[in-house]
Amino acid sequence: MKETTIQLAHGGGGRLSRQLIEAEILSRFGDGPLRQLPDAAVLPPTGGAMVFTTDSFVVQPLDFPGGNIGDLAVYGTVNDIAACGGVPLWLSIGLILEEGLALETLRRVLDSIGSAAEDCGVTVATGDTKVVGRGQCDGMYINTAGIGRRLEGYDLSTARISEGDCVLVSGPLGDHGMAVLSVREGIDIAGGPCSDSAPVHRLVHAAAESAAAVHFMRDPTRGGLAAVLNEAVEGRQLDVTLIEDDIPVSAGTRAVAEMLGLDPLHSASEGRIVAFCAPDGADRVLSAWNGLPEGQRAVRIGLVNNGCGSVVMRTVTGGRCLVDVPRGELLPRIC
Amino acid sequence: MKETTIQLAHGGGGRLSRQLIEAEILSRFGDGPLRQLPDAAVLPPTGGAMVFTTDSFVVQPLDFPGGNIGDLAVYGTVNDIAACGGVPLWLSIGLILEEGLALETLRRVLDSIGSAAEDCGVTVATGDTKVVGRGQCDGMYINTAGIGRRLEGYDLSTARISEGDCVLVSGPLGDHGMAVLSVREGIDIAGGPCSDSAPVHRLVHAAAESAAAVHFMRDPTRGGLAAVLNEAVEGRQLDVTLIEDDIPVSAGTRAVAEMLGLDPLHSASEGRIVAFCAPDGADRVLSAWNGLPEGQRAVRIGLVNNGCGSVVMRTVTGGRCLVDVPRGELLPRIC
Repeated sequence: MKETTIQLAHGGGGRLSRQLIEAEILSRFGDGPLRQLPDAAVLPPTGGAMVFTTDSFVVQPLDFPGGNIGDLAVYGTVNDIAACGGVPLWLSIGLILEEGLALETLRRVLDSIGSAAEDCGVTVATGDTKVVGRGQCDGMYINTAGIGRRLEGYDLSTARISEGDCVLVSGPLGDHGMAVLSVREGIDIAGGPCSDSAPVHRLVHAAAESAAAVHFMRDPTRGGLAAVLNEAVEGRQLDVTLIEDDIPVSAGTRAVAEMLGLDPLHSASEGRIVAFCAPDGADRVLSAWNGLPEGQRAVRIGLVNNGCGSVVMRTVTGGRCLVDVPRGELLPRIC
Repeated sequence: MKETTIQLAHGGGGRLSRQLIEAEILSRFGDGPLRQLPDAAVLPPTGGAMVFTTDSFVVQPLDFPGGNIGDLAVYGTVNDIAACGGVPLWLSIGLILEEGLALETLRRVLDSIGSAAEDCGVTVATGDTKVVGRGQCDGMYINTAGIGRRLEGYDLSTARISEGDCVLVSGPLGDHGMAVLSVREGIDIAGGPCSDSAPVHRLVHAAAESAAAVHFMRDPTRGGLAAVLNEAVEGRQLDVTLIEDDIPVSAGTRAVAEMLGLDPLHSASEGRIVAFCAPDGADRVLSAWNGLPEGQRAVRIGLVNNGCGSVVMRTVTGGRCLVDVPRGELLPRIC
């Protein structure tokens, strides 16, 4: 194409739309069901229970230390499928592009989508591209929806969380949120936070042999670990007790959180998973996770005990504090 | 909720996010797989081939004669599934909301989504809500993705289009595009165009007995009938010959198209379907369509003959003209 930026006509359904789709989408994703650009992809049935999810991505800026909106959009949906015990299979990509967006930016993001999808073994099966006028979308928004097949053995629900369950995390928490905020706020420190944006489906697969012991999983994105744990025990006669010293937070993320007066436990991760496990299975899950590069730093951070739906942390200094759900405007457009 | 407008914190993943989801989403869609707000919905397999599609909706204004962005978002995805021979089953809803959007507007749109989904027999299975700052999304954008089950007998592809095929349409063309444009341009005439936004899956179901005779279907959205027909025969040694007098266009749509100097054949429909049928099956398909309220005005508008990939129209005055793909900026943000 001779154009170097996105024009309104790229979304109009005419000749320029077609050229954009052929040059940028089919060239990257046209080997599978997208080839003939049907209105919808016709796919084989998943075999067993199907897992279906969607996420929109409005992260700003589009690029951040450790990733960009493209791989984030793939991993975000892959991870939602994984958190429900699924193996990701198929992905849809819905692009909303702003008039004037540099084609180079679009190409870079699409390349990231392609690499991330390949890494996760998912196929981009269907998609849609819309263009809005200048000032109507801030560069680019991406929606992904995904379909997966649920792994045998997983039966995940907050209702299964029980007294004595161990709380595991697959790695350091809050890196994504602090990485995005640091670039947005112009904080440029040595060893600053780098997004953990990455897929977690291999961790879920690796733990499948102990699936019966896994009661609930979730990836701690918006609202961070604090939101996941509070939602998990809300309305139950259970508390989560965390050991502050055991919660992994990278030095860079801790530094930026302190500079901005934020709590890393409220900050989003985009490549971690939290699991509630029966005590007799927790070691096996941890050991399975530790065997993978993305789970090397997986640890136990707390346990479930009788209580009243609260999340409590035993602090380094020996005190106890309540870990509440984040309130108010915390981290807009973090994903 | 005490707020009357959307705030950034409604998308932050904290307490206000949770309140918005419970008050507005779960109250409407919480009976099914959404109930526990899992990261993803776990669903039974589709049984037979699965149909998967996505569409983003950025229509401006959000309300137009005959519908709003909510029902449009449901019908758009239902119709993409239907055009591939599928029965729609499950829907995802991804909302991108602008800070300051009136909650009343959101509620009205969600009500429309609910009614439209019920009319189509689809269940909203999963969703996502993001909030962006003022001036970053023009009110509201919606992405829908959908999963359907392919009806037995349909095998649809442009490759199956053959000489002698009849071209059928299920009703008057171009109403949606002209209805949106008329309100955007402030054209207020008696009997003006009203969007045809509606589902077409019942038409596809009704024609299933003659499925073997149906070679290709598509709903003529962006780019209109002209885009569908040109893409259908592009690169083939086939032409489509249309009879201008047989092409149904409502008086209001024709009037607005003439006022704006636009071609109704380039204007989007959002509740019509175009089918290429073998001649021995066309009457049965037409008769099945005519038996439904949404197909009462279905007609044959042309046929496929040997040629060079063009779409030709025999005009009312006896001439012949080429019906080309729309070029340039035609109708931005029509869907």
